[in-house]
Amino acid sequence: MNESPTILSRIKKPADIKLLSIDELEVLAQELRDTIIEEVSGHGGHLAPSLGVIELTLALFKSFDMEEDKLVWDVGHQAYAHKLLTGRADRFHTLRQKDGISGFPRISESPYDHFGVGHSSTSISAALGMAMARDLKGEDNEVIAVIGDGSLTAGMAFEGLNQAGDLGRKMVVVLNDNEMSISRNVGALSQFLSRKMTTPFLQRLKSDVEGLLGTIPKIGDDLAGYAKRYGDSVKSFFTPGMLFEAFHFTYVGPIDGHNTAQMIKVFDEIKQLDKPALVHVMTTKGKGYEPAESDPTHFHGVGKFIPETGLARKFSGSGLPSYTSIFGSTLCNLAERDETIMAITAAMPEGTGTECFRKNFPERFVDVGICEQHAVTFAAGLATQGYKPAVAIYSTFLQRAYDQVVHDVCLQNLNVNFFLDRGGLVGEDGATHHGVFDFSYLRHIPNLVCMAPKDEAELAQMMATAFAYDGPCAMRYPRGTGVGAKVSKTPRKIAIGKGELVREGKDAVIITLGSRVYPALEAAMDLEKEGMDVAVFNTRFIKPLPKKQLLELAADFQKILFVEENALAGGFGSAVLEMFVEEEVLNGHDIKLLGVPDEFIEHGTQTELRAMLGIDSTGMKKVLKEMLN
Amino acid sequence: MNESPTILSRIKKPADIKLLSIDELEVLAQELRDTIIEEVSGHGGHLAPSLGVIELTLALFKSFDMEEDKLVWDVGHQAYAHKLLTGRADRFHTLRQKDGISGFPRISESPYDHFGVGHSSTSISAALGMAMARDLKGEDNEVIAVIGDGSLTAGMAFEGLNQAGDLGRKMVVVLNDNEMSISRNVGALSQFLSRKMTTPFLQRLKSDVEGLLGTIPKIGDDLAGYAKRYGDSVKSFFTPGMLFEAFHFTYVGPIDGHNTAQMIKVFDEIKQLDKPALVHVMTTKGKGYEPAESDPTHFHGVGKFIPETGLARKFSGSGLPSYTSIFGSTLCNLAERDETIMAITAAMPEGTGTECFRKNFPERFVDVGICEQHAVTFAAGLATQGYKPAVAIYSTFLQRAYDQVVHDVCLQNLNVNFFLDRGGLVGEDGATHHGVFDFSYLRHIPNLVCMAPKDEAELAQMMATAFAYDGPCAMRYPRGTGVGAKVSKTPRKIAIGKGELVREGKDAVIITLGSRVYPALEAAMDLEKEGMDVAVFNTRFIKPLPKKQLLELAADFQKILFVEENALAGGFGSAVLEMFVEEEVLNGHDIKLLGVPDEFIEHGTQTELRAMLGIDSTGMKKVLKEMLN
Repeated sequence: MNESPTILSRIKKPADIKLLSIDELEVLAQELRDTIIEEVSGHGGHLAPSLGVIELTLALFKSFDMEEDKLVWDVGHQAYAHKLLTGRADRFHTLRQKDGISGFPRISESPYDHFGVGHSSTSISAALGMAMARDLKGEDNEVIAVIGDGSLTAGMAFEGLNQAGDLGRKMVVVLNDNEMSISRNVGALSQFLSRKMTTPFLQRLKSDVEGLLGTIPKIGDDLAGYAKRYGDSVKSFFTPGMLFEAFHFTYVGPIDGHNTAQMIKVFDEIKQLDKPALVHVMTTKGKGYEPAESDPTHFHGVGKFIPETGLARKFSGSGLPSYTSIFGSTLCNLAERDETIMAITAAMPEGTGTECFRKNFPERFVDVGICEQHAVTFAAGLATQGYKPAVAIYSTFLQRAYDQVVHDVCLQNLNVNFFLDRGGLVGEDGATHHGVFDFSYLRHIPNLVCMAPKDEAELAQMMATAFAYDGPCAMRYPRGTGVGAKVSKTPRKIAIGKGELVREGKDAVIITLGSRVYPALEAAMDLEKEGMDVAVFNTRFIKPLPKKQLLELAADFQKILFVEENALAGGFGSAVLEMFVEEEVLNGHDIKLLGVPDEFIEHGTQTELRAMLGIDSTGMKKVLKEMLN
Repeated sequence: MNESPTILSRIKKPADIKLLSIDELEVLAQELRDTIIEEVSGHGGHLAPSLGVIELTLALFKSFDMEEDKLVWDVGHQAYAHKLLTGRADRFHTLRQKDGISGFPRISESPYDHFGVGHSSTSISAALGMAMARDLKGEDNEVIAVIGDGSLTAGMAFEGLNQAGDLGRKMVVVLNDNEMSISRNVGALSQFLSRKMTTPFLQRLKSDVEGLLGTIPKIGDDLAGYAKRYGDSVKSFFTPGMLFEAFHFTYVGPIDGHNTAQMIKVFDEIKQLDKPALVHVMTTKGKGYEPAESDPTHFHGVGKFIPETGLARKFSGSGLPSYTSIFGSTLCNLAERDETIMAITAAMPEGTGTECFRKNFPERFVDVGICEQHAVTFAAGLATQGYKPAVAIYSTFLQRAYDQVVHDVCLQNLNVNFFLDRGGLVGEDGATHHGVFDFSYLRHIPNLVCMAPKDEAELAQMMATAFAYDGPCAMRYPRGTGVGAKVSKTPRKIAIGKGELVREGKDAVIITLGSRVYPALEAAMDLEKEGMDVAVFNTRFIKPLPKKQLLELAADFQKILFVEENALAGGFGSAVLEMFVEEEVLNGHDIKLLGVPDEFIEHGTQTELRAMLGIDSTGMKKVLKEMLN
């Protein structure tokens, strides 16, 4: 085919977009859409959010000056068009792949990425800092934060809005309202945004107007008509604008987020203001790709699919159910027999596998929105009354509620159970999403039982253990599938602080837990062929440690290898070392620690990253051979 | 004197208050006030907050049923009257003292304390959990959260409100509005609460009404009058209620928080509702004690004072300036010569010593309110533009922003400096406030330099070091005074990752940093008299560790004692152990670790607590003697 060059291929720098006509922008929008669909269908990625903001991105690039102005994307999973337009079209096919471009904006990746993101609701705070810096320097660039209505439910966004309004500095917040976060949005204010609000205030105002009209002399029969007309008029005042005006923002909207021309006009006008402004843009998540428009939650972050149909490509993986789904079904099984079990998710019923719990036990399920802090303390409140909340939050997102875990749950020794999906390396989402700090940020909290299952069966057993234990527990488990271990519908609890010798040996012992147990076994089996006899011990718990068993191992083995899928700093190996010192058994040992070094780990597949860090079976074998030779 | 028994002495259980008349409640209010002033003047404590809610407490106890209903105080430093009325009058003289009652509500202390607090803005979340639990159980008790307008600025409170409105469960939020947090309140919404709002919405509504009236035929001369009357009427709609009604709360207020009878009437009415309600109560912080009313910030948390005058009692301490004030003055000195230095506090300009910075450099100072999350990311935004923000937040409160430190600052390697006052044991504020986790929650974060000064001079030097270093730094320092080291006005930076041998010795070495260096020296000097020759090494840094020097020490000394004022789990000693294992130098050593064990530490003086944990010089001597004999 003899195609003419695309407009996209002619964009060498963002300023080129300013030269395009509205018609050309529409063509470009379609090209961006096609490129994104094609790329994501081949490798997976955040499709629906990125499709939803293509026109918005173009309008921003047309109206603002990307060389001077600072554009901050919240969360960043909607920034694919931004990436394509800022010098990364050539590398777009490397998206989310090892050594390729990130799935999120990164300062280190492009001068047009002004703030790195991945976690939600940071954009207003960051943009406000940039706006204040601009004013201090006496410069006059624009600062724009683009935030979704889902991200706006997080308290942090409220903190940013509240201070931005107070400081009164010139900045633009674009509210990208698709009435969703990842799933359908929750919270009282989401109804406000969608104008479904019927407050007593509105009712009072209406009756007051009618009353007023009634007191005006000589109106006669027209009264009813005026009252009605005025009532309708009053209603139209109750835009979401009221809320933002209370925060001292100038509000414009809602406007059609797929009408590029209209958005450009509004942005051009809003630039004239010298104070905080909020532009409310209505978008459709997944816009322009029918499968994504009809199921935007599925296409929020999606695996490989066939572009023509949206159907998932034949799965080349194990075909096993994910840890997430086993967590979800086990939670339902346990809740069947214990009506004090509740499930709490922070805007991720699908991601955490609690969607089935929601269906089966709607009255015991709560989606709090993107509010991890509230989720944890709300759970603590439930626990004071005898309930056993399961707080299902990804490892990386529970970081948001570290203080609440300490102060509200563990200090009070409450029966709240934390289930941390995506513990360890998550793969393609990269540095912002790896769950490699949880051992380190949890294990020093008094009263908290911390554990990690080696497989699906142990996951279910640990869940039973957590609910049977009267105090706080945290279990972290990896993204992806396990080994296919058979999961009981009535899992038995295991002894807290007790591990298991999963393989005997005499030359050395690998002490590990969680996702590293099976690779350790594999390493030991391979080494057996080479004449080395390596034991493997699964501690199951990082806290309390299986002290007695570990001391026995220390007595039996001179060579010990600790392996963990967590930061070495303050992690699992570190915990055992502390205990060994306390028990005075450290001397005479040859000890090695494998884990995540003291650096942020970029994106890549889990397999690639584990190999790179040497925490897969190959890496273990290498170290063990060195230790044994 | 032959006094008749007080009403307070006759209160044996909360229900006794229900039998009192309004007149008797007023007498009781005065008795409570006198008791609280007397006690706090003798030992220090949170005076102004507690004085402000005495009538509110009585009204709540009169209207609600304290045996069945759940009353949750936010932060809890206003709960002294609550404590006096719930069986703790006899022990009130032990307030905040070792083995005495806590300064905050504690579940373990009283069945009337339904949720332990200390950090702010948790009450709505916890109360909502209790309300949901009640509904699930089919019970019908009331749940009441009392939250200050300061606490309401935290995003977490917004998260709670937003969900409470959505779930629609019966609960009462009492907004205790004194227009302050600890200092004067900030944020756009604080103006909303105080009705100083003049939004474009209000202006639009007014002009619309005028326009409407203009269209009505035959009104003639009355038009102006109606418009004016209606304008006034509309204005009265713009109560803070609008905001809470947007959250689906029924709003009542504002009412006089010192008019007990009126509050009882409102509470009795509000109980009839079957949905979330917010009662807006206006109180005066420090009410009824003139010195506290005129300087509520000083009397928020106060030391011993003379009740008659409010003047501080003669200070029996060292007379040295606190670390806080030295931090504040040094920050000003450094900012004098570096105009990129900024200061950010989260509602604590006085507590963090940044008040003087605010006065000297108002344009470079920001008080964000009780918004630690926003504070950190706002600072990150500033840092992307070349500024060097000093984020001054207590160790225990920075826990609220752990994720932002990881995700927004350290992952991007931004030049944000964290200054953690109240690192280590804080004393009388107890378990909720000790800063004994910061080494553990910070040291595993890549890119972050972590340090702790041994004295005032080193504090200043470390500050200079932090601002000179292009990347994130955290310095933690203790509550209270140092040793009187002379502080330079132009402190020199020190080498990052380099420690100092502060005392030579040959029998053993104490490796420590921060607040434990001088006690270690004292221990070593005492042991010298007993013929033991102990060296003391100050690592200064927990990250990066002074590796070369530590390896030399490991080569020179067989006996090593690590001491830290932090949780042992994942703390300082743990960090050195990891490095020793990595470097294969651990064998053959006799190593002991002193620090905070794996439990929450209660209140007491810093001296008492350090002695109890064996991390003072006496404790070190004891362990060293065991090691050396």
